[in-house]
Amino acid sequence: MIQVAILGFGVVGSGVAEVIRRNNGPISARAGAGIEVKYILDVRDFPDSPYADRFVKDFSVIEQDPEVEVVVETIGGCAVAYDYTKRALNAGKSVVTSNKELVAEHGFELLHLAREHTASYLFEASVGGGIPILHPLTQCLAANRLTEVQGILNGTTNYILTRMITDGISFEEALKEAQQRGYAEHDPTDDVEGIDACRKICILATIAFGRHVYPRQVPTEGITKITLADVSYADAAGMKVKLLGRAIRQPEDRVMAYVAPHFVPVSDPLASVEDVFNAITVRGNAIGDVMFYGRGAGMLPTASAVVSDVIEAARHVRTRRFLSWEEGGEDYVVGTQTLATQWFLRLKGAIRDLEGLGPVSILGRAGAPEDEVGVITEAMTRAELERRLAGRTALSAIRVLDESADLA
Amino acid sequence: MIQVAILGFGVVGSGVAEVIRRNNGPISARAGAGIEVKYILDVRDFPDSPYADRFVKDFSVIEQDPEVEVVVETIGGCAVAYDYTKRALNAGKSVVTSNKELVAEHGFELLHLAREHTASYLFEASVGGGIPILHPLTQCLAANRLTEVQGILNGTTNYILTRMITDGISFEEALKEAQQRGYAEHDPTDDVEGIDACRKICILATIAFGRHVYPRQVPTEGITKITLADVSYADAAGMKVKLLGRAIRQPEDRVMAYVAPHFVPVSDPLASVEDVFNAITVRGNAIGDVMFYGRGAGMLPTASAVVSDVIEAARHVRTRRFLSWEEGGEDYVVGTQTLATQWFLRLKGAIRDLEGLGPVSILGRAGAPEDEVGVITEAMTRAELERRLAGRTALSAIRVLDESADLA
Repeated sequence: MIQVAILGFGVVGSGVAEVIRRNNGPISARAGAGIEVKYILDVRDFPDSPYADRFVKDFSVIEQDPEVEVVVETIGGCAVAYDYTKRALNAGKSVVTSNKELVAEHGFELLHLAREHTASYLFEASVGGGIPILHPLTQCLAANRLTEVQGILNGTTNYILTRMITDGISFEEALKEAQQRGYAEHDPTDDVEGIDACRKICILATIAFGRHVYPRQVPTEGITKITLADVSYADAAGMKVKLLGRAIRQPEDRVMAYVAPHFVPVSDPLASVEDVFNAITVRGNAIGDVMFYGRGAGMLPTASAVVSDVIEAARHVRTRRFLSWEEGGEDYVVGTQTLATQWFLRLKGAIRDLEGLGPVSILGRAGAPEDEVGVITEAMTRAELERRLAGRTALSAIRVLDESADLA
Repeated sequence: MIQVAILGFGVVGSGVAEVIRRNNGPISARAGAGIEVKYILDVRDFPDSPYADRFVKDFSVIEQDPEVEVVVETIGGCAVAYDYTKRALNAGKSVVTSNKELVAEHGFELLHLAREHTASYLFEASVGGGIPILHPLTQCLAANRLTEVQGILNGTTNYILTRMITDGISFEEALKEAQQRGYAEHDPTDDVEGIDACRKICILATIAFGRHVYPRQVPTEGITKITLADVSYADAAGMKVKLLGRAIRQPEDRVMAYVAPHFVPVSDPLASVEDVFNAITVRGNAIGDVMFYGRGAGMLPTASAVVSDVIEAARHVRTRRFLSWEEGGEDYVVGTQTLATQWFLRLKGAIRDLEGLGPVSILGRAGAPEDEVGVITEAMTRAELERRLAGRTALSAIRVLDESADLA
């Protein structure tokens, strides 16, 4: 029997307890031993919960109980969660988490600590919710030299963009609706400013390319400036506006990573990923493009990914599973200065004012004011774009995702 | 150093040699030991190959060389491949394959043999080419009770259907083109009659639900009867014609599996899978729907999946990785008799002749003869459909994939 402690009884933590209860037969069969929740740590009281007798408020109870072999951390953030994770690993217990912030900020150190204490630190649920992506990235794609990882990594912003595109409601209205449906937090900053997507692309880039990429190294732009006008021009161009996290292998073993809204051609599989769904595309030199698609959040999908890792930890209680990567570095991550892409521009002015931009495709949209023009430029860096704009201010400047050579 | 023997130097076998050569650094790092191709077995001579010195014609050389720990079988079929696989496993060597026919027909026996000899038998490449699907199915989704697996499992037929849908060319022309491009064999029977898709859905169903499903138990219908008229009606209905393999969990621990063309609503992610791409959707009680998408065939994608398994086998040379399932049985797989779906019907006659079919949506298409009518019925079993047709012969009768509750 493998005894598990769950830290935090919020959406994911209670989902983990529920999945372990509901699917106990197949879970225990796959783990090779029974799985039992011995403790749940939460500051709140849950007198009516079926697990009422298992709640504790003092982490040292769990830390000091040698029967507990796997700790599930679903507290989130980098404060208490960081402290408890270190203490659990130091006590030789394996830790499973969905905490992308902690992994993105301290993954290197925590994996190192896990290895020192012959414990596992597993975090499949930290990216893509229930979508199996980190395991396939490390295992199944082991035969490839990976060149690029990119995707729609945040369900809240994808829901908002989908509502804007499909139903023509504004960003503010769509955000309010997402909050009412429980898809967005009361304070939506982490989602709409791209911070959540940034943490996830850090984790993906780190695994794909082998060295730690830190969130502070990744230029991040959210969707708060996207207007219905931009969405209409995208439609006219046969594209959709999507918030993408991207990580691209660079010369001299460096990596470029960033988060920004993009115009995505409808022929690209990422364009048809709607609502709260997530999708991650991985490109390798042998495999071409592979895409993983599913619910990126939600209680049961995320919990199911956590429980898969609990099973993994339980199966390897004696042999342990080690994932590891190297420490990052200031020189390792390069900015987007060298990235040349086509750009969508929305400008104040008339078509005759486009002089100096180089060849452009002019787009139309219903209801455009007379002094507005939307265009798609040829591929260039941001610096070159600024030079050609020569002081003109673009109302919008959004990168166009290049048609993938592989998928075309 | 792990010594590998490759059986068969065709498209996949030579791809495996190429991937091992091209990505040797990362592959060896992940395997925890160098990987070297010691022998290649083929009946043909390859005097100009860079591997010319490694060719052998007698399998017993490989069988009796204790240095060879991993055998890659890319011969295909159930004759020699079956014999060599048994002999390799009996000699305690792990076997990695892309041979779906052999796995679908003899997987239970071969896995059993592998376990008896503490060897691994791995076949990620047998389904979905380079798409990691069997590993995620067994590992990452371990926390779910799976209810359904379905997908576009054959790239050749998907290419043909895409050409029919997008460019309006006939089945015969599209097939000829696929052959010219090397996407279809000279004898295309296995692809166009659904036999290849049948083997793959057998393997997926077996892993997802735990007991062996044999090809002979799975009703299989290909795409040879699909006409441009059907494709046009699908378009009018907002759908696309796709060849799907499906396996659905049934009451009393049985499973329903079949292969048939379907009308797929464009809102379903499977509808946007085009050309030679494959996609597999897995539904679990916690995770909802997850989709895996990529190139289902081709030298390098398939080879990369084989090499991933070689790495897996190499990493577990001492501990071994066992996958296992139970033997199947005649009662275990049920036919599609109880499956009620909507149907697309193309009938000879006029609208007034639709009497007795129940409520239908009438479809139009350009250039339809006056005495043809296309409709979509309400959901019913095939027996009920036959009863309502009351002796009328449908020119086409194609199941409509129900809009997924989860994805809707």
